[in-house]
Parts: sequence; C-alpha cells; structure tokens
Amino acid sequence: MRILFSPIGNTDPWRNDRDGAMLNIVRHYKPDLTFLFFTESIWEGSDKVAPHRLFNWEEIIKKVSNKTSVECMIEKIEDVNGFDSYKDIFHKYLVDLENRYPDAEFLLNVTSGTPQMETTLCLEYITYPSHKDCIQVTTPLLASNANTKYANPEDQEIDLEIVNIEESKSESRCQSISIISFREAMIRNQVKSLIENYDYEAILWLLDAQKSFYNGSRIRSRLKEVTKNIKTHEVFPSITKKYRNNDLQKALFHFLLLDMRFKRRDIAEVLIRVKSITEFVVEKYLNRKYVGLIKYTKGKPYINLFYNPKFMSDYHNLLKNENYKFDERRLLSFPAYYNFFKILEPEGRLIKKMSCVNDINGIRNDVAHNLENLNLEKNGNEEKIVKAVRAVKEMISIVFPEIKQDDYEYFTKLNKELKELL
Amino acid sequence: MRILFSPIGNTDPWRNDRDGAMLNIVRHYKPDLTFLFFTESIWEGSDKVAPHRLFNWEEIIKKVSNKTSVECMIEKIEDVNGFDSYKDIFHKYLVDLENRYPDAEFLLNVTSGTPQMETTLCLEYITYPSHKDCIQVTTPLLASNANTKYANPEDQEIDLEIVNIEESKSESRCQSISIISFREAMIRNQVKSLIENYDYEAILWLLDAQKSFYNGSRIRSRLKEVTKNIKTHEVFPSITKKYRNNDLQKALFHFLLLDMRFKRRDIAEVLIRVKSITEFVVEKYLNRKYVGLIKYTKGKPYINLFYNPKFMSDYHNLLKNENYKFDERRLLSFPAYYNFFKILEPEGRLIKKMSCVNDINGIRNDVAHNLENLNLEKNGNEEKIVKAVRAVKEMISIVFPEIKQDDYEYFTKLNKELKELL
Repeated sequence: MRILFSPIGNTDPWRNDRDGAMLNIVRHYKPDLTFLFFTESIWEGSDKVAPHRLFNWEEIIKKVSNKTSVECMIEKIEDVNGFDSYKDIFHKYLVDLENRYPDAEFLLNVTSGTPQMETTLCLEYITYPSHKDCIQVTTPLLASNANTKYANPEDQEIDLEIVNIEESKSESRCQSISIISFREAMIRNQVKSLIENYDYEAILWLLDAQKSFYNGSRIRSRLKEVTKNIKTHEVFPSITKKYRNNDLQKALFHFLLLDMRFKRRDIAEVLIRVKSITEFVVEKYLNRKYVGLIKYTKGKPYINLFYNPKFMSDYHNLLKNENYKFDERRLLSFPAYYNFFKILEPEGRLIKKMSCVNDINGIRNDVAHNLENLNLEKNGNEEKIVKAVRAVKEMISIVFPEIKQDDYEYFTKLNKELKELL
Repeated sequence: MRILFSPIGNTDPWRNDRDGAMLNIVRHYKPDLTFLFFTESIWEGSDKVAPHRLFNWEEIIKKVSNKTSVECMIEKIEDVNGFDSYKDIFHKYLVDLENRYPDAEFLLNVTSGTPQMETTLCLEYITYPSHKDCIQVTTPLLASNANTKYANPEDQEIDLEIVNIEESKSESRCQSISIISFREAMIRNQVKSLIENYDYEAILWLLDAQKSFYNGSRIRSRLKEVTKNIKTHEVFPSITKKYRNNDLQKALFHFLLLDMRFKRRDIAEVLIRVKSITEFVVEKYLNRKYVGLIKYTKGKPYINLFYNPKFMSDYHNLLKNENYKFDERRLLSFPAYYNFFKILEPEGRLIKKMSCVNDINGIRNDVAHNLENLNLEKNGNEEKIVKAVRAVKEMISIVFPEIKQDDYEYFTKLNKELKELL
C-alpha cells in the first residue's frame, strides 16, 4: 500500500485555483492513506491564515482520489519555525505508521508546511530511507507563490470544482527528489576510511543496508569475492591466473594475508602465522635445491637418512653441540630447517632472514600453544615481529624471484581499485 | 577565522525594518568573511522582487560589522524551486572556501533563500559536518513574515539606519540548530549492524570520524580496550577478576575468540586454532588427574617414562597397533593426548569431544602447514568444524566446570552493553 505523509501549510488545500502540494500528490499518486499533520496554529487559524479545521479534508481528498482514506493529526508546537519542534514528532508518527503498515511505501510531501518541516522530512528520509520517497511539488507558475489568492473555507465546494477543472488540463507537478545522494556521500566517506583499514567486511555490512549506492553492486561483488578468499584461504584468482607454480601462489597469498593483518595490528595472529609460512617457503627451497634431503611419509616431511653422508654427519654433530638428540622419526619443522641451513648455506641470504623468524619462535610458541598474551613492550617483541614480517617477504622473493614486486601490493591495488569505484 | 555562507532571499537584507536572516547573523557573529549566494533571478529582480544587485551589500554589511569582508556569487538557476539545482553548486562553493581557508569555521545560514536552499544546506551540513554550524534566524514577530514590507534598494541608506536602531533594542534572533542528531541516528544504525557482526574495530573507525555521538567516548574507550585485548590475546579483565585459575582464564578467553571468529565465518582461522586450544585444555586435565604423566623440559611437554608401567606398556601396544613407533623424545601434542585418553578414559566424556577435533586434524594441518585452502563443501568439512567448535566449549566446561555458563556469552553481553549505550 501507499501512504502519503504530509504536513499542511497555508498553500493547502489549494491556492490561486490550483492544487496545493498535498492535493497534487494525492491527485497523481492516489495513495491508500493520507496522513495530514497540522500545527495547532494552522488548524485554528490566525489573522493571516484561515482556520484549516474548517476545510473538510476527507471530502476534498475523496473527491480527488476516492480510494484514499484520511487521518488528521493536530499538534501544539511552541516554536513553529524551529527545527527541534518537528524532529521527534515526525519521526514518532512515521515509525507509528510503519508499525501499523509494515509493507507500506511512504511518500513524504516536502513542499507543504514551513521550511523547517520540509527540511526535517528530508533529513528523516536521509536517515531512514527505506521504503520512502520525498515528493516535491512545483508551483503552477514555476515561480514563487507570493501574493496569490489563498483558499477560503467558505467557498470550498465551488472552489474545489474550479481547481479540479484547472488541474485536469495540467500535468502532474510532483517530482521525486534525489537527495539520497547526500546519504551516499556520507557512506562513501565511511567506506573510504574502512578501506584504509582493510576492513572489507564492514564495508559489505554498510553497503548491504544501503538501497542505492553508486557502483554498489560492483563494489559488493568484488568484496564478497575477496572476503570469501580471505576466510577460506583460497588464493586470489588474479594470482592463480598469473603464476602457474602452486607453491608460489600459496606463499604469496599467505604473505598478503599476513601483511594485511600486520597493517591492521592484528599482531598476535601475525605472530602465530609467521612461522608456518616460513616453514612452507624454506621447505620448497630445500626440495628444489637439495633434492632428496626431505622425504615424505603420508604427506609429512621427514629427514632422509640416505641423503648425503657428509651432511648427515654434520647434522648429527650440530645437534650434539646444541644438546639435542638426532631422531629421524621426528617431523621436520622450522627449527630443523634452520639447522639444515646452518650446514648447507651458513652464509646465504635465506638463513639471515630465517634468524629473524627464529628470534620470535619462543614467544610465538608461548602465544600459539601456551595461549599466553603478547606483550609488545617486552624484550623488543614489537621490533622483532616487524623484522620477522619483513623477513617473510624477503624469503619469498628469494625462493620465488619470479614474483613481480607489484603483486606484493595486492591490497594496495585493491584499495585503489575500490576508491576509484567510489 | 569565521565564514558565513548565506544564500540571499527576498527577506534580505531586511524586511519590515528588521534584519533579514543574513544580516542578523552578521550582526551577532561578526564573521571575517561573508559569502553571499544569489540566483540570477533575485539578483536581477522580477515583478515581485526588487533587483538585489541594487543593494550595496558590502557597505550594508560593513556598517553592521566593519571587520567583515564580502564576496558575492551569482548563478543562473533553471529551476529555483528544485533541489538538484543547489546540491552541487553549494557543495562546490563550500569545498572551494574550505580549500582557501582550511582553518575556518563555517556558519551556514539556513533561513534565507528558498526552502530548497535551506534543505540543501542542512543536508550538506549533515553529510560534511566538520567545522560547520547551521544557523537559523527566527522572525521578529515569532510568526510568519507573510504580508510585511520588503526592502527597497532606493531607500537603503536611511532604511539601514532604522534597522540598526530597531535591532539595537533586540537580542540576537540566531540559533544554532541541532540537526546533527540525524547523522547520529544514521551512524547509530550502522553501529548496531556492525555490533551484530562483532566488528568492533569498524565501529571505532566510524566513531572516530564523528565529532559528536551520544555516549561516544564511553563506547570508544570500551571498544579500544576490547580490541586491544583481542589483538594481543590478553585475557579480558572481567575474566581475570572473576577467576583465579590462570589456565581457566586463558582457555575461556581463547574459546571466546574462537567462537567470535566462528560467528564471523572466519572459518580457516577457526580451524587452525581449534587444535591448539584443545591441546591446552586436555593437557591441563591430564596434569591434574594423572600427575606425573607429563614431564616438562624447557617448558615443553614430554612423556614421563617412569610414570605407570601398566600405562606405558598399554601405550606401547597402542602405538604398535597403529603402526607408530614410541619415542619419548617427541614433543607431546594433540595426537599423543588423544591416544592417552584411549587408554586412560576410553569411555569418558572428554575423549568423545576430542574425537571431533581429531576428525578435522588432517584438514587442519593442510590449512595450517601446507597453506591449503579450506573447501567447506568437501567431506562434510563445514559440519565437522561446527562440531569441533562445540566440542571445544564442552571440553572446557568439563575441565573447568566452575566457569559460569554466562561467561561463555562474553560477546553477547558486550553487544548488549554496547546497544544499551547507543
């Protein structure tokens, strides 16, 4: 159903033999219900304005649109030209109507009444735009109404006939006004700020509540894809398209997630993930350069006892010196790989980077396994984590030098793309 | 500095020997610059309105406030009663002024001009409220201005003297209008929707951009605390206050994070964390009930060979049957604990819950270590993760039965608290 919400001013119900704004809307939209709002002063009249209670509103409206029912509400307003006077009252009436008619579409007459009423209705619309439309009605002269004839209750029947004849010759003077763009502008600024924080999910939530938004569906579908990939750790399609190497894809993607969380200061999660990514990357390197050093059983990495006798004896000695016992049944992980590099490439570029990860391994395990909190101030932890994140990127670019620098900036590029869509 | 932005209407510069809205604002706020906006039709005049170009605006304004400089802008507007006419023009002029005077405070005259101009300025303010204030000016009669004497350019000098005398007897008729609440209402709805998604950080970002917000500082400080705890895994103070047991605190807190991420569908992260929390909780249980079974070296858990001979022989057999070799040097973790329970409490409540975590351990390791993506549709993974998250809660409540049910609802309570502050 369709409901017209209309304040009533002194150009209602008509003026100069033509519809006032309310009547013109009723004539052309034929609402099921028209809700009229009067201030007590217009209802009772003054030396300048005829008492509007003397108009038979129901009869007038029925003659213009016979299916339309009418409700009148009269409120005593202390300051008729104030803003605060209408804010709560209009909101209350509109919420009440929405509760009574949950499926209704609302037309708000923003032409009748005082400028303050008009502004209040526009603001109400911007704030709660759902199922609403603001209708403005231009004057027949396409200019100000000043100095033209007001309606007189005593002549209302004959006057209405004249008005009906005059209006029957004319087109609708109603137009829906496009002020929702103000709301859009506001949300656009919020979206910009959330983009800076890589908070793509919050953007989706804001846009979902927004009925119209420039490029809204493009932004939404892009972000739905991105957030789904993030949540399920599925490599972004632009990466899988560009690079064939599956390991490279995963390493790059996980670095991007790591870096994004780091920028969001999700620091404990970053700390937990640094080691797994490092492990993954250096394992791929070892498999490529030292074929056969690692053997896999049920997909899990173990040391191959039959690799290289010199290496094995060096490794035994190294463990012995560090007070560890060699055990070939132990699953390989970061500490083992770190030791391998001490033997294989003690002066290499990778081991230097691995040492940054090694430096946080203790606190990492406390946070990941002992569920300790992360004290950033303690032992230079913050600085160590910064270094470790940087080291992860450098290790990836050593192991997968074919990755274009540009592709480490996935989120920077995404943010740029999103901003361009705004 | 202070800048007045004012459209000019037919009640400017004065009417009926009293200030029009613009002049009253100039009189009482004494801006450094007054920017006047004229439509071509009011500038040139019509049969109803005197040509406003004939008023000496600078002289008039200087006589009322001698420090105020004046800029006039005249624009041809096709539809003077339309909304779209002013939206872009006003915005353009205001942005231009803001660029020229980055430190200025702006007063927007929302009384002069057409109702559409007024509404447009109010909407502009709501959308970009920073360093702005909307000033409304009431008429001297505290009622409509209709049928009173307009200003005549020919008599402007003598008329201004009369106006100055009349106004000198009166208080300011200006008032700052409090329509920012519409913006607040809009943001309040957005905040509500973000609360539903536990997106506390996005709320902070929205509120930071908002100069006034009911309970804003309370909401902000609460959320700053909560997000800091989340980001550094530091147990919420309400938990540390209520429970003395450090292990209980950590288990509960990490379940809360897990559950919150689960509700946000951050599903890969949830999958990765389930195992660590389970490991932590059952290890505490084993230490309490089977004292001495686990021994710690450098803080890390190993099996104690001298625990109970019967248990050790059972454990050897169990590993043998499952084709694993016993190795006392291996760090204990979830699979070992799961096996312990097969011997110690094969019919107990905990092992049933642990089996839910065991069911996802393979996919968990693929995601955590092999950086695989999580395919929710495959092998009933989604259902298995749901079960595992529930199982974590049940294990915690078995191991720490003193936790009140209520405390598992930390985020539900936080959300309620936040909504009450809105």
